[in-house]
Amino acid sequence: MIAFTRGVPATEAFPVEALGECAASALAKYSSQILQYGSFRGFGPLREFIAAGHGLQPDQVLLSQGALQIVDFVARSLITPGSTVLVEQPSYDRVIKVLRRAGATVVGVPLQEDGMDLTACEELIREHHPLMTYVISDFQNPSGTTMSEAKRRAFAALAEQYGMLVLEDVPYRRLRYAGDDVPTIQSMIPHRTIQLGSFSKLLSPGLRVGLAFGPQQYMDRLGKTAQDTYITPSLLSQATVFEFIDTGLLPAQIEKLHNLYRPRLSELLAVLDAEMADLGTWARPEGGFFVGVTLNKSVKAEALIARGLEKGIQLTNGRDFFADGRGDTFVRLPFCALTTEEIDEGVRTLAQVVRSL
Amino acid sequence: MIAFTRGVPATEAFPVEALGECAASALAKYSSQILQYGSFRGFGPLREFIAAGHGLQPDQVLLSQGALQIVDFVARSLITPGSTVLVEQPSYDRVIKVLRRAGATVVGVPLQEDGMDLTACEELIREHHPLMTYVISDFQNPSGTTMSEAKRRAFAALAEQYGMLVLEDVPYRRLRYAGDDVPTIQSMIPHRTIQLGSFSKLLSPGLRVGLAFGPQQYMDRLGKTAQDTYITPSLLSQATVFEFIDTGLLPAQIEKLHNLYRPRLSELLAVLDAEMADLGTWARPEGGFFVGVTLNKSVKAEALIARGLEKGIQLTNGRDFFADGRGDTFVRLPFCALTTEEIDEGVRTLAQVVRSL
Repeated sequence: MIAFTRGVPATEAFPVEALGECAASALAKYSSQILQYGSFRGFGPLREFIAAGHGLQPDQVLLSQGALQIVDFVARSLITPGSTVLVEQPSYDRVIKVLRRAGATVVGVPLQEDGMDLTACEELIREHHPLMTYVISDFQNPSGTTMSEAKRRAFAALAEQYGMLVLEDVPYRRLRYAGDDVPTIQSMIPHRTIQLGSFSKLLSPGLRVGLAFGPQQYMDRLGKTAQDTYITPSLLSQATVFEFIDTGLLPAQIEKLHNLYRPRLSELLAVLDAEMADLGTWARPEGGFFVGVTLNKSVKAEALIARGLEKGIQLTNGRDFFADGRGDTFVRLPFCALTTEEIDEGVRTLAQVVRSL
Repeated sequence: MIAFTRGVPATEAFPVEALGECAASALAKYSSQILQYGSFRGFGPLREFIAAGHGLQPDQVLLSQGALQIVDFVARSLITPGSTVLVEQPSYDRVIKVLRRAGATVVGVPLQEDGMDLTACEELIREHHPLMTYVISDFQNPSGTTMSEAKRRAFAALAEQYGMLVLEDVPYRRLRYAGDDVPTIQSMIPHRTIQLGSFSKLLSPGLRVGLAFGPQQYMDRLGKTAQDTYITPSLLSQATVFEFIDTGLLPAQIEKLHNLYRPRLSELLAVLDAEMADLGTWARPEGGFFVGVTLNKSVKAEALIARGLEKGIQLTNGRDFFADGRGDTFVRLPFCALTTEEIDEGVRTLAQVVRSL
């Protein structure tokens, strides 16, 4: 069975031995900080490192148990029932769920190959007066698209004009296998952006080290919610990540990931071209974890999933990524945890399945 | 300054070196489990160990980032606005806050030296039809009281009679410095009890390993909320705790804590007898972290705190522990992180401060 459901890193990408050494040395160096209750904002040295990289104060950085938990803090701190949040459509299914759980109305803005449709975005802003927009700027989950610099600037201008907060999620940003970085939205409008990041895709998801930074007043509100939820986050993981960075291991780890994932993405795009050119369209990502295919055939997600299982592939329900419940014809293809052979076979099977429906 | 505010373990109690070795060996043994996304219920081997100790299935155990986060899951999964939750009065301030944040009406049941006043408890049950009662059975925070076996049985019978859920929190249970264990409420009515535990007081709070177990249908609901909040908890800490247990280190660690904390509790009770016999009353705990003093003098918490600070002691506002906002005359004295000299000086100072008001 080939799992196109799992948007996870490759197991062989984990720097197991180095992390073991980093955990032990973090405990040796910082034991009294790590083992006692600590700041609700998270492990100080890692916050200082992140803050320095963005010209911020350490207290503008919040470290938590993965970035999704921080989305939950955003939702619980800032959203009141009746708040509207815009998301790209499609967007990350778990975030849609977390926002709704807090009482938000989640509205999708159609996503194009170079980012949101900004005409539609402005119309929706005028109609709904959203509190914020959640956007995954680089190698979007689930579509793989990257928002162009021009669109980022235009979107930032919209956020300014309408006084809207931006929640910019960039977990895949450093996983660029080709091309050049595009400036973040946060760098354009830092005073109205909370940026989310994560070490899950670079080091390990099981460590659960996510981060956010932004304007002090928002970070204080998120921090208060964090404190009232768990007092202090898990500090051993955060200190282990800091040790990994502090001993200079991160650049080589990221290069290792690029070399591991680049051929997998190339293979996926090549086999899609060869097998599915007549069946759908997709963006051509230069990084990240996903390629999202929109089928040009009317199918039901359930039928696609069921037929896929019969033939040996597992698929996620495309509707989960759509705030309005559409998405039957959307297929997310995560490629990082699959070998090129599995990618090849998986896409051939997908093409057969789609043709058979 | 002597901090009577900090209900934390003594820093010298942390088994630093052993935890470093356990973290490294956990990574070596379980790397693919720890570093990848895993079960939302937490690290399997630790759940199996805990389940076996209570005759449960591993999926009846939920491991999370400290027990408070699990209280939050209970609050978010089970409480709907309008739900009433009974707590002992006084009770753990952070739990009162978490319950209220989820929309619960929190009502306090007067606490006596051997546990809740059960006559008052039954009256409140009849009046409010509470969804559940939150109770800290052993060495209660903040009062230090332990509920007697007779009261536990009578309370369990009340829970049965009125179809009420019990959330039994036992973080201090294994920190008994004298006397014998009393059976848990969970052991009396397992089908209607969710029991919370923690390794924060035994090993380290910074690791953030809390746990809960109970009837499968409740644990499934809590687990679903956990998954929707953070996908997977931080697995490195949980595996480190498991390694510590699995290599047989826990009994000696607990004995070390008993030997460290027993003289501190004795000293606290002795100096209270010597200095404050005419100023208030308190329970005589046989374990845990706290002695709670109720002053027999009418004072305002703010005045007490301010005068304390002038004289060199920090106190927590007693009202925080009272669901109804009373508690001005209640003083929580945590003793574990203080030396006997600090305890001695701290209580002498407290006595002076009280006399001066």
